[in-house]
Amino acid sequence: MFNGINDDKLREECGVIGIYKSDTESVAQHVYFGLYSLQHRGQESAGIATNNGTQTHYHKGMGLVPEVFNDETLGKLKGHIGIGHVRYSTTGESYVENAQPLSVRYKGGSISLAHNGNLVNTKAIRSQLEDDGVVFQTTIDSEVIVNLIARYSNDGIEYAIKRTMDQIKGAYALVVMTEDSVFGVRDPLGLRPLCLGSIEGGYVLASESCALETMGATLIRDIEPGEIIRISKEGTFSIYYTKESKKNVCIFEYIYFARPDSVMENISIYESRKNAGRILAKEHPVDADMVIAVPDSSIPAAIGYAEESGIPFGEGLMKNRYVGRTFIQPTQSMRELAVRLKLTPLKQNVNGKRLIMIDDSIVRGTTSKQIVESLKAAGAKEVHVRIVSPPVAYSCYFGIDTPDRTQLLGANKTIEEIRNFIGADSLAYISLEGLVESTGLNNEQFCLACFNGNYPIEVSNI
Amino acid sequence: MFNGINDDKLREECGVIGIYKSDTESVAQHVYFGLYSLQHRGQESAGIATNNGTQTHYHKGMGLVPEVFNDETLGKLKGHIGIGHVRYSTTGESYVENAQPLSVRYKGGSISLAHNGNLVNTKAIRSQLEDDGVVFQTTIDSEVIVNLIARYSNDGIEYAIKRTMDQIKGAYALVVMTEDSVFGVRDPLGLRPLCLGSIEGGYVLASESCALETMGATLIRDIEPGEIIRISKEGTFSIYYTKESKKNVCIFEYIYFARPDSVMENISIYESRKNAGRILAKEHPVDADMVIAVPDSSIPAAIGYAEESGIPFGEGLMKNRYVGRTFIQPTQSMRELAVRLKLTPLKQNVNGKRLIMIDDSIVRGTTSKQIVESLKAAGAKEVHVRIVSPPVAYSCYFGIDTPDRTQLLGANKTIEEIRNFIGADSLAYISLEGLVESTGLNNEQFCLACFNGNYPIEVSNI
Amino acid sequence: MFNGINDDKLREECGVIGIYKSDTESVAQHVYFGLYSLQHRGQESAGIATNNGTQTHYHKGMGLVPEVFNDETLGKLKGHIGIGHVRYSTTGESYVENAQPLSVRYKGGSISLAHNGNLVNTKAIRSQLEDDGVVFQTTIDSEVIVNLIARYSNDGIEYAIKRTMDQIKGAYALVVMTEDSVFGVRDPLGLRPLCLGSIEGGYVLASESCALETMGATLIRDIEPGEIIRISKEGTFSIYYTKESKKNVCIFEYIYFARPDSVMENISIYESRKNAGRILAKEHPVDADMVIAVPDSSIPAAIGYAEESGIPFGEGLMKNRYVGRTFIQPTQSMRELAVRLKLTPLKQNVNGKRLIMIDDSIVRGTTSKQIVESLKAAGAKEVHVRIVSPPVAYSCYFGIDTPDRTQLLGANKTIEEIRNFIGADSLAYISLEGLVESTGLNNEQFCLACFNGNYPIEVSNI
Amino acid sequence: MFNGINDDKLREECGVIGIYKSDTESVAQHVYFGLYSLQHRGQESAGIATNNGTQTHYHKGMGLVPEVFNDETLGKLKGHIGIGHVRYSTTGESYVENAQPLSVRYKGGSISLAHNGNLVNTKAIRSQLEDDGVVFQTTIDSEVIVNLIARYSNDGIEYAIKRTMDQIKGAYALVVMTEDSVFGVRDPLGLRPLCLGSIEGGYVLASESCALETMGATLIRDIEPGEIIRISKEGTFSIYYTKESKKNVCIFEYIYFARPDSVMENISIYESRKNAGRILAKEHPVDADMVIAVPDSSIPAAIGYAEESGIPFGEGLMKNRYVGRTFIQPTQSMRELAVRLKLTPLKQNVNGKRLIMIDDSIVRGTTSKQIVESLKAAGAKEVHVRIVSPPVAYSCYFGIDTPDRTQLLGANKTIEEIRNFIGADSLAYISLEGLVESTGLNNEQFCLACFNGNYPIEVSNI
Repeated sequence: MFNGINDDKLREECGVIGIYKSDTESVAQHVYFGLYSLQHRGQESAGIATNNGTQTHYHKGMGLVPEVFNDETLGKLKGHIGIGHVRYSTTGESYVENAQPLSVRYKGGSISLAHNGNLVNTKAIRSQLEDDGVVFQTTIDSEVIVNLIARYSNDGIEYAIKRTMDQIKGAYALVVMTEDSVFGVRDPLGLRPLCLGSIEGGYVLASESCALETMGATLIRDIEPGEIIRISKEGTFSIYYTKESKKNVCIFEYIYFARPDSVMENISIYESRKNAGRILAKEHPVDADMVIAVPDSSIPAAIGYAEESGIPFGEGLMKNRYVGRTFIQPTQSMRELAVRLKLTPLKQNVNGKRLIMIDDSIVRGTTSKQIVESLKAAGAKEVHVRIVSPPVAYSCYFGIDTPDRTQLLGANKTIEEIRNFIGADSLAYISLEGLVESTGLNNEQFCLACFNGNYPIEVSNI
Repeated sequence: MFNGINDDKLREECGVIGIYKSDTESVAQHVYFGLYSLQHRGQESAGIATNNGTQTHYHKGMGLVPEVFNDETLGKLKGHIGIGHVRYSTTGESYVENAQPLSVRYKGGSISLAHNGNLVNTKAIRSQLEDDGVVFQTTIDSEVIVNLIARYSNDGIEYAIKRTMDQIKGAYALVVMTEDSVFGVRDPLGLRPLCLGSIEGGYVLASESCALETMGATLIRDIEPGEIIRISKEGTFSIYYTKESKKNVCIFEYIYFARPDSVMENISIYESRKNAGRILAKEHPVDADMVIAVPDSSIPAAIGYAEESGIPFGEGLMKNRYVGRTFIQPTQSMRELAVRLKLTPLKQNVNGKRLIMIDDSIVRGTTSKQIVESLKAAGAKEVHVRIVSPPVAYSCYFGIDTPDRTQLLGANKTIEEIRNFIGADSLAYISLEGLVESTGLNNEQFCLACFNGNYPIEVSNI
Repeated sequence: MFNGINDDKLREECGVIGIYKSDTESVAQHVYFGLYSLQHRGQESAGIATNNGTQTHYHKGMGLVPEVFNDETLGKLKGHIGIGHVRYSTTGESYVENAQPLSVRYKGGSISLAHNGNLVNTKAIRSQLEDDGVVFQTTIDSEVIVNLIARYSNDGIEYAIKRTMDQIKGAYALVVMTEDSVFGVRDPLGLRPLCLGSIEGGYVLASESCALETMGATLIRDIEPGEIIRISKEGTFSIYYTKESKKNVCIFEYIYFARPDSVMENISIYESRKNAGRILAKEHPVDADMVIAVPDSSIPAAIGYAEESGIPFGEGLMKNRYVGRTFIQPTQSMRELAVRLKLTPLKQNVNGKRLIMIDDSIVRGTTSKQIVESLKAAGAKEVHVRIVSPPVAYSCYFGIDTPDRTQLLGANKTIEEIRNFIGADSLAYISLEGLVESTGLNNEQFCLACFNGNYPIEVSNI
Repeated sequence: MFNGINDDKLREECGVIGIYKSDTESVAQHVYFGLYSLQHRGQESAGIATNNGTQTHYHKGMGLVPEVFNDETLGKLKGHIGIGHVRYSTTGESYVENAQPLSVRYKGGSISLAHNGNLVNTKAIRSQLEDDGVVFQTTIDSEVIVNLIARYSNDGIEYAIKRTMDQIKGAYALVVMTEDSVFGVRDPLGLRPLCLGSIEGGYVLASESCALETMGATLIRDIEPGEIIRISKEGTFSIYYTKESKKNVCIFEYIYFARPDSVMENISIYESRKNAGRILAKEHPVDADMVIAVPDSSIPAAIGYAEESGIPFGEGLMKNRYVGRTFIQPTQSMRELAVRLKLTPLKQNVNGKRLIMIDDSIVRGTTSKQIVESLKAAGAKEVHVRIVSPPVAYSCYFGIDTPDRTQLLGANKTIEEIRNFIGADSLAYISLEGLVESTGLNNEQFCLACFNGNYPIEVSNI
């Protein structure tokens, strides 16, 4: 795809679903609905694996959930246990071989696994396993994890998962399916989200609570950091990897990744974003005629900013809903226009106005620059950019696709330089304290490494 | 597609683009960009025809603009003159044979034509032409029109178009391409929109001004009702079918069809929608905690309502951006959930609140009913529905897909009955006067037939 | 497709099917089976139109019959009357718009038409029709023919077809479908074949009798030159355009186009080819160890040659059955090998032998040259080429795709020069008399223009 | 696909290609050409893996070679070492996951493997490996083999392959690719074929010599049973698993699987088939008018039979070249006709004649029955069926897809019963001695288990 109309955003790498529903012969549609709601977490590939107690079925493919599955393929996915996965589309190589869930046979039977997150010691473990004669067919962490579980499975699958957690370091929210159970596993720091819901006849696991709604389930609670929850015909049963686990949830879920209608750690994403807008208004007020959002993710914050500041909220940018994954290669003269195809300034509403433009983050700054330019070209008298996160200055190693530090504006430029680069009349970021405050939790409960470089796990030799 | 997640909306039937640009060898990308911006006017098929002075090329196909065209197909569309078309996806039969533009050879050379609108005397003209030995390969009006033009072409194409306008009755915005010119034609009542823009080296025609922006053109003005504008190497030249033409523009363009960033008859669509929200607030105030919109089209009106009423605007419904044209057939138990996949209540933001829900129109009422139910299920204490158009009570014959009168709630039920049907705590529609007022124009300038049955053209024997 | 592995053959341009079967609700599968058997006559596109007395349905597309149709598309083609068409894939532009049958509405109702052949005065008629205001959407003759029929339809469709035949000149075998009948029409010279068969409940028309077999029908007879046969609930009824019509059937049907299991003018194609082989052996004997055929079309002639000469028949060339319509672009060094992918010499069977290689025709000679080379490379001591048709020296204007005269070896080189060009040890063609003799008919009954330039219709100003 | 038009044949399960060519940057086209020539050995999936010394690339997919690969995908397969695979299409489930080559990372680097054949102790080895913690992602033998190699790789890859051969029992012709070499491996009984050829700058491996021709290579010799040949920049180097290895080549390669232009164990497939026809004529003469073949595989034998008996060879059955892998579901009344679509009797040539019909084998007899019926319906006076192999009475466990013994006619019926079932006037099979004699080799050199049940490897507990 022509890059000029891509967003300049950090990217979540996956979403997972798990379900055990004793009163049905097929949970495939439930998983399908759940994945549909998590589509924002990954658009590269999708997959579902199901089990009816004796046999595992799976189907996966490149593309969006409705492209990968149809009535026929779903119909073949028999079974009352199921897991699913959506994967993010990186710009580089993407193979169907790397799609998840990964289903394997091991001595204990069959096991399927889907993973959201990123391990930081994969290389070392792979090397160790290779020394033991293991061969790897993919480059995904799931293959490493499933090999460990199989190896440790002599004393039962729960124990095997626990021992696997001794080995792997990094961020992981896992759903694991066997012939009789589905497991939810969250890393000891809780870096990636995973929640539990109840449904008639069983239980559901999902990366975000918004998926529960569309599956007909009700949110019970988040899976705890370090918790291993087993769902089977006996109901739910939890063991903990460690009691000392400490929450370090990824704050970017609150800023951008999660859907506004999700609830994480008992906090409404929508509320926290609106709060952040209010705090931003207090921290960085500016006189203006209208508060606008870069759609869609920044709308709650813009509403919050507007309410706090008393400056009216309005729409200043139209998002073309039909811009998808294919686009022609524009000629030189059309390149600039291609950008506007995706986000068009609402000329009549911005012309002659002083605008406060709310965006959730700036990564490379290229899109921000283009938007500010197009607003000015549409007649905006002033464009004051307000960002609902601090400058992103460090790469993430826990499941978020960040560019090299060399490309991160926040790591290399002063705020004034960035303002100058994007052409804004003023630029301000929310403070880290303000951001944390917006959630109602405190600093210790978050991984804030992308802002302050304090990685909760050693990442020196990755 | 499973109907339960379709919108209960009236549907525009087409969008058209025309361009003459003397300084290039290919305008195909310009037309592509323009059609991309008009995609909301039709998602069934797309087509482009170009001409380089000697040869006509065309490509059309079923699907969205980026699905129908790629670098290879666009690359073959040589020429400095071009027209394009997007067509709406009706639920019934849709054949590629009915895609437009329609390109034919006639005695004067080649002619291509694209049409937005609907003729009301097609049957009679077809019958007459058939008596003269004409055969028809499609069921589209364009084939009738192009046959008339060819027949009358002895005294030149302009005269032929004028004589054709003597024959055809109904709504039409046409772009017509010959080897040396592109024509824009608007019916004498101006029922369907068409505007003119300037671009380096030439001129552009488009159903909506939003397309001009993305083509790099600047809006000059609307084509007048009854105007025939010819664009060629001599520039633009206009003749008028009749001086007595009277504007009767379709008010639904302002309510729902047009993109908010378009300007029609010098009125900003965004502004008129926001105004309508304000007027609605004055006409039908109600005490509540939050004003929400049914996304995306009702957002400007909701903002207007909020500003006027002083009740804060907020988001109450999440639209799933990935719901496309394919969807599985949900089992009985999943059917209700399928609806929520598309529009999910923002539980945390609506729970316990008294809501004013702004929607642009109610046609059959089925979607409204589902939304109100889901908001209540999400904890909304009250849901007051406010509609930014009067009850739709009459079918349209001028290019809008309306259900049978028997299915129009507004034709068959009192407002109280409708309120009861959709389960709202209160329901109110903007007055026809209020709606007209929101645009700044007056009653005489609009076709309001879908509300009051006063058809500007005889439609008794269709 | 990479041209190096294409055959150097003349190409038939179409095959047609017609059926009327009163005892069924759907003849679509019958037409499908018939087209399947005529696939060798055209691989570019396929189409079927059916009629149930009130409504016409059609489906057509690019590709082979099994690619264009599936259970779903066939299931929609309701009706007890049907026609079908397969079209040959030229290397140039091929549009679905040019696929047949062509279905139109005219004053008398609906009419569908499929055409095998080529008119020589299309241009003049089109011009005349254009003067009357007719517009043309395609470049196919069928559109011209259907316009004429519609124009003359006041006195009934039969009369209209007869009057149409007054106008059109050239080669045509037509099937025409109305709401109550299917017509078979053959040009007054019978240039292109068309035969009639009986089937339970009705009758069948087909370009070749081999299609009748697979439709469950029995051959009755060929349609006569100049005959118009109407099949309806009354049975069959024939009128004749002219009593003076004179048979001028295309002799290339016997040489190459028709399937060996077809019977034309009461002559078995297989037998006539075998006879031709025998006659060739008498005319041009040569001492050798084995007679081989260029598969598949030359096998009967090779068997005939072998029987007559007493030299054993054997296989010398393997045809790769999987070489289809897509192929990669081979690098320079692989180009020569690409040719052998399609036809591989059977090394073990040709090594050290003196071969007589039978081929049906030489057009440009490029493939012959490659085959002789590869046989020599495989160890053949001698390769004596014997051709079962005289040198092709004139272009065809009646429905066969021939290269320009400048590219026809037979028009520009002596036999010795051709022998030298293709590298054969000897080369001989059957005499025109011998070829005609092989069919059992006489000179007057054939169009032999491609060999002797005596065109049965004036073609000077095409 | 509708089964009625499938052949009643045993099916080969795969074909493999290997190449090392030091003087190029890409061998992908060579492998593509080779696979094209082996397409008859497998039409389900195709795959190629290449290596340039540092990186492995691969591409595989469902379908025919030209469907799986195009210029773009081939272009990405960089490297001077390559292997390829085609796989047979079973009627059951076929997943892209089971396509080969299988490429993995192991401690020694990367290894890719393609396998033709079938192991008989897979289950036991898998179980053993699973006890060691190995997980399996596919159901193909290649995954078992590659795990063993990886496990034994400490002392070098050659040694690892040798140790792997200690473990696996069954039929296997392998090509194995590492970063610096390609290996050819043949099981100690030589059950499945594999040959070596020379090419400019390197060497080639292929299941059949016909592939060498189209790759531009020259046959050197067959890989010996039990031989491991390494091809690298040092040239070729062979080690032997065991000196006691005894040839037990599959005789069905000579009867049906291999292409006639291949040479195996220095025997021309074409010659051996023709010989078999001669011997069959001596063993089972019958008075008749014409010898016909069931095309294509039985033609050489039919020519041999004709030559020996003095009865002329002729064509009696037309094979439709366009019958592919998709076909509609015929209605009841069309079912019988569907069979004739594929093989149509050449009525004019068989009518009134006493025929000897040569076929290579009878498995379930259903197709034979249909063909005999259709020949009789076409007027054949007598049909004498002669089979160029003895009755197939035992299932194969070494890589050939045979039905259950219960469905094998040869295991359950007398010859007279079979004759009666297929409706022939007489039926005779070649003797096992005659068949072996046709190859010029002797009994001990073949696996004849499908005829006599003498399995060269214990298969009791599969």
